[in-house]
Parts: sequence; structure tokens; C-alpha cells
Amino acid sequence: SVNPDLASERQAASFSVEKLTVWLDGGVENTRTRRAVVEAIECDPEFSREDQYFQSQNERYEAAVRKAVHLQKKMHEMGWTEDGPEYKYIYRALAGDVAFLLHRIFMRSISMLGSDKQIAKWIPLASQYKLIGSYAQTELGHGTYLQGLETTAVFDSTTQEFILNTPKISAMKWWPGDMGRSATHTVAFAQLYVQGKCYGVHPFIVQIRSLRDHSLCPGITAGDIGPKMNFEHVDNGFLLLQSVRIPRENMLSRFCEVQPDGTYVRWGSQKIYYFTMTSVRISLLSDEVIVPMMKACTIAIRYSVVRRQSKLKPGEQEAKILDYQTQQEKLLPQLAAAYAFYFINDYLQELFDNGYREIQKKNFDMLPELHAFSSGFKAVVSQHCTSAVEICLRACGGHGYSSLSGLPALYTKILASCIYEGENTILLLQTARFLIKCFMEASAGQPVPPSVTYLVAVKPMRCPAKNKLDFLSPAIYTEAYQHMAARLVSSTAAKLQDLIQSGVKKHDAWNQCTVQLAQAAKAHCHYITVKNFAETVEKLQAQAGIQKIMKHLSDLFALHGIFSNAGAFLHDGYLSGAQMDMVTASYLDLLPLIRKDAVPLVDAFDFTDKSLNSALGSYDGHVYQRLYEWAQKSPTNKQMSPAYEKYLKPLLHNKLSKL
Amino acid sequence: SVNPDLASERQAASFSVEKLTVWLDGGVENTRTRRAVVEAIECDPEFSREDQYFQSQNERYEAAVRKAVHLQKKMHEMGWTEDGPEYKYIYRALAGDVAFLLHRIFMRSISMLGSDKQIAKWIPLASQYKLIGSYAQTELGHGTYLQGLETTAVFDSTTQEFILNTPKISAMKWWPGDMGRSATHTVAFAQLYVQGKCYGVHPFIVQIRSLRDHSLCPGITAGDIGPKMNFEHVDNGFLLLQSVRIPRENMLSRFCEVQPDGTYVRWGSQKIYYFTMTSVRISLLSDEVIVPMMKACTIAIRYSVVRRQSKLKPGEQEAKILDYQTQQEKLLPQLAAAYAFYFINDYLQELFDNGYREIQKKNFDMLPELHAFSSGFKAVVSQHCTSAVEICLRACGGHGYSSLSGLPALYTKILASCIYEGENTILLLQTARFLIKCFMEASAGQPVPPSVTYLVAVKPMRCPAKNKLDFLSPAIYTEAYQHMAARLVSSTAAKLQDLIQSGVKKHDAWNQCTVQLAQAAKAHCHYITVKNFAETVEKLQAQAGIQKIMKHLSDLFALHGIFSNAGAFLHDGYLSGAQMDMVTASYLDLLPLIRKDAVPLVDAFDFTDKSLNSALGSYDGHVYQRLYEWAQKSPTNKQMSPAYEKYLKPLLHNKLSKL
Repeated sequence: SVNPDLASERQAASFSVEKLTVWLDGGVENTRTRRAVVEAIECDPEFSREDQYFQSQNERYEAAVRKAVHLQKKMHEMGWTEDGPEYKYIYRALAGDVAFLLHRIFMRSISMLGSDKQIAKWIPLASQYKLIGSYAQTELGHGTYLQGLETTAVFDSTTQEFILNTPKISAMKWWPGDMGRSATHTVAFAQLYVQGKCYGVHPFIVQIRSLRDHSLCPGITAGDIGPKMNFEHVDNGFLLLQSVRIPRENMLSRFCEVQPDGTYVRWGSQKIYYFTMTSVRISLLSDEVIVPMMKACTIAIRYSVVRRQSKLKPGEQEAKILDYQTQQEKLLPQLAAAYAFYFINDYLQELFDNGYREIQKKNFDMLPELHAFSSGFKAVVSQHCTSAVEICLRACGGHGYSSLSGLPALYTKILASCIYEGENTILLLQTARFLIKCFMEASAGQPVPPSVTYLVAVKPMRCPAKNKLDFLSPAIYTEAYQHMAARLVSSTAAKLQDLIQSGVKKHDAWNQCTVQLAQAAKAHCHYITVKNFAETVEKLQAQAGIQKIMKHLSDLFALHGIFSNAGAFLHDGYLSGAQMDMVTASYLDLLPLIRKDAVPLVDAFDFTDKSLNSALGSYDGHVYQRLYEWAQKSPTNKQMSPAYEKYLKPLLHNKLSKL
Repeated sequence: SVNPDLASERQAASFSVEKLTVWLDGGVENTRTRRAVVEAIECDPEFSREDQYFQSQNERYEAAVRKAVHLQKKMHEMGWTEDGPEYKYIYRALAGDVAFLLHRIFMRSISMLGSDKQIAKWIPLASQYKLIGSYAQTELGHGTYLQGLETTAVFDSTTQEFILNTPKISAMKWWPGDMGRSATHTVAFAQLYVQGKCYGVHPFIVQIRSLRDHSLCPGITAGDIGPKMNFEHVDNGFLLLQSVRIPRENMLSRFCEVQPDGTYVRWGSQKIYYFTMTSVRISLLSDEVIVPMMKACTIAIRYSVVRRQSKLKPGEQEAKILDYQTQQEKLLPQLAAAYAFYFINDYLQELFDNGYREIQKKNFDMLPELHAFSSGFKAVVSQHCTSAVEICLRACGGHGYSSLSGLPALYTKILASCIYEGENTILLLQTARFLIKCFMEASAGQPVPPSVTYLVAVKPMRCPAKNKLDFLSPAIYTEAYQHMAARLVSSTAAKLQDLIQSGVKKHDAWNQCTVQLAQAAKAHCHYITVKNFAETVEKLQAQAGIQKIMKHLSDLFALHGIFSNAGAFLHDGYLSGAQMDMVTASYLDLLPLIRKDAVPLVDAFDFTDKSLNSALGSYDGHVYQRLYEWAQKSPTNKQMSPAYEKYLKPLLHNKLSKL
């Protein structure tokens, strides 16, 4: 039975939830496959996440290893392969709670950076888990700036070996996943030295633990870096290398090699490195960022129609909290953003697939644009979704703060996505560098990629909207975003030029513009997202019911952005104060409209209760019963705390049992 | 020895750190007392927080109880009393990691709501810990809206008892601290019924556990609510009452009473209830919100001059990350806000002390203003500080995400302050209600409290600033904030009036304005904070060195607010786009100025290493050594995980130890 407050929301849906789900999946075939994978995983007790909120870091790690090993068996059993249609749904079904993700990066880096001979040796061993690999790039003192890595690999021609060392504590490898306790091997990045000359950072395969008894190899110090805000299931590790010798053949040598006599040879294009990072950034967006945010929306919105608080009208029953404008204003823009980012992910994936096809033809022209897009969107989407999850958590009040809501774990995990695979500010500045370069080139009449031609296109200087309904026109709001993004890019370019012309050195001038450059990069991504949402809705003509509600969400996403960043639109008078009032009015008017379909809109994401793992967010809405049931399972309720005997009993009045 | 990068920052200080510390403490006597308390606590191994990051929920609870019990002994030993000057520093020195805070609320509620006889019976028992009290107000289905509580207390005149019941699951008490495992008694709030008539919510003393063996009393079901985002040391509990009988004398009866024959009598003013909430909200701001944010600033700023990343100038050493404009723009506004809120806390405390004196004279005139201030500032300050801690965490990159940085625990704890003691949105709307009421009264020529007369004062419609330096004038920016706050209040009042005049019912009209009402309340608090900071700096004339840097911080706080909320200032043309460019220029110019003194400015907060408990933030800056040392202590490194034998060993290639 479903909580009647939740059931009534579903009865009132203005569209078919199933149709929306299928459309989001990209067709009924995909929906079927996804559901089959999810069911197979969830009905297998080995993959249970039931006790997750009660486990220690040690227990979480053990469970993650167990699941990773069991997954191999399961895949074989089910006939799932890494190239099969099921594969992309497996990680989603496991909610990421599985070990050996870095083992996959280990394999990928050998496949991409290793010679054919190296691939032939290592990949079969790795794919059968005859060894566990990791990927040791980051050091205690060095993250994003790869050139600053301090680990050294010195070639010894007499023994035909590299000698690896951690010259000081800041050079210790720190953070690599699967390395603290699991890995037997790692791809370690180190500065290559041959005959006293430094050739820069290169990747080396290093064995760190014995295959026989898992003891550390000679010269290796390694372990777990301890507790983190989340990722207890991952053994992020440290690694200290003291005169560790590896054979010459262990330097990954698709692109360069040290020959037996110490000659350093390099061939092939280095650009492909960028493409690897680009691919990782795009692929993490869906599973690590957008899906968790969709889950948070599901939990918070379902809870907000079950939870009643205060009276909206005197004399009536307490109101569902989603009926308050302030609650709508917290959650519905996040729901709209979840859709917006779901669609931008498709857009990026397509861009990436096109780029990949070109690169296979040795055409690297799209790389700068791809790199700029993947960097900027990784930053903007992870930032937005992290805030969104926090908003969802807080919108559930005290119960949101309970681990049993599922929201704390979603938040602490998604927060990491703002930091890993490129810190967001640094990524935004990479996008900004691309935008400034394109702006200068376009201003000088040179050709630029189609996505940035708008930067110099002539546009009206004032928004033509006359009343609040005009702001429901995608042409009106898309143009406002375009204008705003172009203005921020051009005005920052002008500031940069002015500074340089006034004698400030180029790198200082750049630093003095970085706050504004980051804003410009965000504005560009925001514009593309708004435009893509509007275009996605436009293409939906055939499915009228769905198109209507998607149009509302697209409008809400756009107007919420204008409402929240009003300064950027008012600054040069593109919007007047009176027009901003119209935006506000239209924006607030959309809230009760979308509120009616809020539950069906999250139902369409089609998360199972097991995948949400939330006492607040389950499909049947029995929030309070589930909280009570789950709390009773807590280890804190298993026995009386020793604190009673030790500290309380001696203190308490115990002549009477009752006062 | 201190890390040289950190040492050089201190040598360059433009002011005396010790003088600033003393001034912040309010005199050398206070500094001395504070340091003595901190030292006494920190040198006592019973209060050690060394293993905190490695402990389970059970262990954290046990440690908190041990500390609470030991604290009584310590206080006696040291001659500290609850009225003494040391008392306010104890909690700070313990970093809040101690049990029985709700026991204090239990005592406070009996003192305030109990009759003299009840006080005489219960307070001595409680103050000697002959019983442990808790405070059971919140229910599973009911938080802020007290009238909605469902627990019942039915008077049975035949036995002269109240019979307490939890009529359904949503009525179960949920969240009360110290109740899950420690408390023997609680003050429970329940709907009072006498002879079938409901008299509303009243407080009752209920015994829940035996004093002899700590077993649950008949009719009581209670336990711990399980894991939360933080507060593992607190046994937040649930409580289910089934026909629990308590004597008539256990209803707290300072203000009302059920007489033996069932006659309900009420006397005295109920307004005092508000004053209790006001006092709690103000007192939590300092310890639970502002101090944690000051700690986060200390950690992030110290780390940002030790951490080096990329090159600012080609050919040079990698730069301290605090030398990047983007890092300054993340951290320095938070530092300025820490000072701003430290000062607003003094302001609120003074306002509260004045109010208290009046209330003791039975003059309740200040109550509405006090209530509005405490609500609004609790919301605004907790929200701002929570975001600030998140910014600090993210600004430390991956290492900020490690529990060992101390930042995750600061964040997950401060986040709760946005939810407890009144959810922030609800509090803002209470402030807004006060502002709208005052605005209407003032518009009608009636007198209003001095803090809100500005709402109807005539002001220039355009900011008179002519260049960027004009925006360093407190008169200019304070007036801009005043104008903005008054505009938001008056325009929302007008919208409300329009809606009502157009036939929308009053409560619907209110709901339709709540997004803007919350904005108006925030703007009011922001204005008061900016004004108070400027006035505090003004009064500092005697101490020139300190005044200069405080002036910079005051300017930064104000201009950061305008820069970040540009729309609110541009909307009606009070600031032009050109003036906003001046604000931006002045704002960005302040960053490198304050950056020079950033380390001394956090050093002046005078947190010990033990109280920060952070591998990144300690005074000597030996970040990497400490991370490594602490990580080695993690239980994850104590032994090989069982996962190896169970799952990995059967899989790994173990014919060779080395590949």
C-alpha cells in the first residue's frame, strides 16, 4: 500500500510516467535492459546495501571487494560483457559501491599508453584479476600540476632497470584508489632521468605487493590514507618508493622509450593525453554527478508530499510542505536542473563520439573545443549538482540529516566530484582560456568552432520582452543568456588587454582577471545548457503531454538562472528592472504549475527503493515506519553501552529505581 | 620549527597579533582566563580528541559520556563554577565533544517553567547527576509547528495522574539528545486533555529508565535513532509512550496547573516562552556556528600558504596557492565574514542583555524585536557560515576532503545549525513578518523600534559614488545596503497588498510572497551586519594598526556582498552598471591587500592545534608530515583486511610472488 498523500500525487499526473521514462532511456529496449540489470543485481544478496549506513570503514572496504569479485562471476553467469548493452547499467545498479575502479584505469592506461607487447603481457592478467592494478599519479604535495611531480625514475643502463624513489615526503603518492590495501601493481608517474638529464613525467608499471602473500615488495611502504568524508569503501592509499628497481620494459612505451643504451626516443602525438582526460570527465558526469542529484531530488520531493507541517489555511489540516512556495523554490529548480543536465550529458556524449571518430582519422581539430567543453561542464555541473543535493538534504529538515535518509551519503560523495579529475576552478580557467582565444580570433575575423561564433555575433542591446509571458519564449531567454555570456567574455578580454597595455606582465594580468574569467566560463556553459534544453523540448513535438511539462521545466531552469544571477543580466541594461520583475513573476508562476507534476517527474527517473536506499524516499512513502524500523537495526541499539557501567552507574541515584 | 612558508607570512604582519587577540577577547583578563581553561582541558588526557576521526558511533558516545562525567570532577578540582568567568570557555575548549547538553536544557526548562516546589525537588538531583535529563519536544512527524504535536497527556482525577500516550507512529518523540541511551528522565511535551477537553501543548517530567539498572520503565520504548551526518557522540533518541502514568505534580506548573479536581488554571505571561527560544538561538551562534567557521578559515588559510601549486610566473618556484586571485576570492571574504559575525554576535548579545534587564522589570516591549533579530540572524549567520566552511573545505582540494583535515567534521556539524532550533526558512519568514508589520506601522506614522526606522526614511534614489575609491567609504556602502533592504521590504509589502486587494486570500497572498519575504529578511540582516562592522571599526581609533586592517575587512565584507548580489543593487538603478564595475574593481583590489595579513588574521583567533585537530591547519604548518603520521594510526592500517584471505587470495596469480 502506498501512502495516500503520495498516491494522490500520482493520480494527478498530466503525462504518462512510463512514456517519459522510456524517452529518457532512449527507447524501450534500453529501459528493458536497464531494468533487467537492476533486478538481477538487486535480487542477489551478495550486492545488498542494507547495512551500509551502519558499517565501519573496514567493513565498507571488505564489502566493496566482495562485490567486485562477485561481479565477475555474475557477469559470466548473466552473459554480460564489457561491450554489451547491459554494461553501462551495472555501475548504476551497484550505486558505485564496488572496489577496483582504479584497476580499470590501470588497464585503460596500459591499453592507451603501452606498447603492443606490454598490452599483450599485462591486459590478460589484469582482466582475469591475476593482479590488481592501481594508478599512482597524485602526490601528497602535487595534484593538478603534473609537471610538479617529484617521484623519480632513474635509468640504470648496467642492469637495464629504472630505480624509483620518493625523494621527500611531499613526493609520496597519496590518494590513489585500490592502492591502500588491494593493489599488487600500479602505474606510477615519475620524472624520468637518463644519464643525469630529466625527460619529464612518464608512466611506469611497478609491483607493490607480493602475489603470493600480499606482503609489500622490497623498498615499498604503502597503506591506507585513513578516513574521508565518504568513499569508505575505497582504499585510497599512500606509496613510498625507496630504490625500487623495475625492468626497462616496465616504462609504458607507446609514445616513447628508453633504449638499452639510454637513448630516449619519442614518437606519435601527445594530444591524445588530453582526450583521455576529456573522456574521463564526461563519463563521470553521468554516474557520479547527475544520477546522485536525480536521486536526491526523488527523495526530497517524495518526502515533501508526505511530510506535513503547519497550516497553510487556518482551520485546515496541516499542509504538505511542497505546497509552500519556499519549499517549491528550493526543490523544483533542482528538479529542472536535473533534467537540464541529463540532456546536456547526452549533448556532450554526442560531441565526444563525433570527436572520437575524427581522432581515429588522425584529425585532432576538435580537441581544444572538446577539452574546453569537458572541463567547463565538469566544473559547472558538479558544482551545481553538489549544491542541489545540499539543498535537497536541508529541505528535508532534521530527517534529511539522518544517514538513513540517504542524503548525507549522496552529498558527501558528490562533493568529491568538485575536487577530483581536475579542481573546478582550474578547469573553469581552462575553458576561459579557450573562450578568450576564440574571442580574439573571431574578433580578428578568423574562423572559430561553431559553438563560440556567438561571442562576436551582433545582437540587440536590449531584451525585447514586453510582459511576463514573453519570458516563457525560449528565443527570449536563450538570447538573454547568450548576450550575458558574450558580454562577460568580451569585457574580461578587454580588461586583460588593458592591463597588458598598461604594462602589467601577461601572467600577472591573467591572474588579476581570473575571478571574472571563471565567471565568463560558467556563463558560457550556462548558456549552452539553456539552449540545449530548449532545443531538446522543441524536438519532442510528437509527444505532446511530455513536451508540455518539459517546456515548463526548461522555462523554470532558464528563469531561475536569471532570477538568481540578476546582476549579470541587469548590468549593461540588457534587462531593465521592470523586465526583471516580469522574470520573477513568470518564474514564481511556474512553481505551482510544475509542483502538480513533481512526483511523477521524479518517478520517471525510475530508481528502485534499493538503489535509493532511503527511509524518506521510497516509492510507497511510508517514511516514519521505515525510519523507525531502520533505526532499530543500528548497532547503537544492539546492547547497553559500556558507558553505563563505567561512568553513569556510579553517578546515578540508585537507591530508588523510580523518583 | 615552523614551516618557512608559514613563518615568512607571520614576519610580514602589519599589526600585533597578540593585541588583536586581546581586543577580540574583550581584554587581557579574558584572554588569560581563556588560555588557562584551554590549557587545563587540553593537558588532561581524559579530554583527548586524538582518535576522534577513527572512532565508531558507539565509541564517540562512550567518549562523550566519559568527558561529561570527568568534567564535573575537573570543574570541582579547578574551582570553576557555572557563574564563574571560566565557564564560557569550557565548551569551546572541549570543541563541543561532550555529552549531556540536553541535560542542561532539561534543567533550564524546569528552572523556567517549573514551580518553586518542582525546582526544589528536581534541580538539586539533576545538578548532581543523580538523574540524567533530556528534553522531548520534536516528534517523528512534527518539528517546528509545536501545536501539531500528537503525544497526549490525559488527566485521570481518580488516581491524580496524567496518562501519556503516543497515539501513532508520527507522534513518537524523535531526535532528542541524551535520550537514546543516557537519560533517566525527560521533559516531554504533550497535548493536555482534562475531561475530554484539549488545553494544548504542555511540558511534563517523565521518567524513562530505572535509576537502579537503567532498564526502560513500564510502557516506555526508547533507543537511539542511529547514524547521522555528525553528532555521533550524541545519543539522539526515540521514545514511544504506552499508557505511561505520571503523578499530577509532574506537569511543569509555573504558568499553569491542573488542580486535583481537574480545574485548569493559567497565570503569568506566555511571552517568556519566546525569550527562551531567543536566548538559545543567540547562544548557539557563537559556539556552534561562528567559532567553527573561524576554525575552518584558520585551517584553509594556513594550508594555502604551505601548499604550492603550478607557477604564477614562468621560471619561478611553484606559487603558494593563496597567491592566486581565485583562491583569495574564495577564502578572504570568508575571513572577513568571520570577523563580521564575531562582531554581530557581540551586538546581539548586548541587545539580548538589555532585553533581559527590561524583561526582569516585566517590560516585554522589546520581545518582538529581539525575537525577529534572533530568528533572522540565526538563519543568516548559520547559512553563511555553513557555505563558508564548505568553501574552505573545497579550497583545500583533496586534502580538505580527508577527515584528517578536520574540515569534513566542521562542515557536517555546522550544517545541522541550519536545521535545528528553527529551520532557517521558517525563521526568516518570522523576521519578515516583523519587518512588514513595522513597515506598515511606520508608513502609517506609528512609532517602530529604532532598528527599523530606516524602512521608511527618505533616501537618495541613486548612489553618489563617482569612482572606485568612493566605495571604500562606509557611508556609501552602508547606505547602499540600507536602500536595498528597504526596497525589498517595501516592494514585497506592496506585492502583498496588491494580491490581497485583488481578492487573493490573506494566507495565500502571504504564501505567494514568501520567496521574496525571505530575501527581504536576509537583506535586513545583511544591512545590520555591514553597519555594525563599520561602526565597530570606527570605535577602534586608538589602535591604529588594528583599525587599518579591520577597515579593509569591513570594506571587503561589504563589497563582496554587493559583488555577489549585484542584482539587488542594480535593480532600481540605485547603482549603475558603471558603479558596479567600480565596486568590482575596489573589491578585487582589496584581496591582495588583505592577503598579506591573512595568516596573522587567523592566528589572532588563537586556536590551539588540539582544538583545531587538523593535519592541515596546525600552527607549525608541517602539513604533509602530519597527514602521513596520522594516516598511519588509522584502524585500516592495523592489520591485513579479511578481504584478502576471503576474496583476493583465491583470485590472484600466486604461482610467482613477482611478475
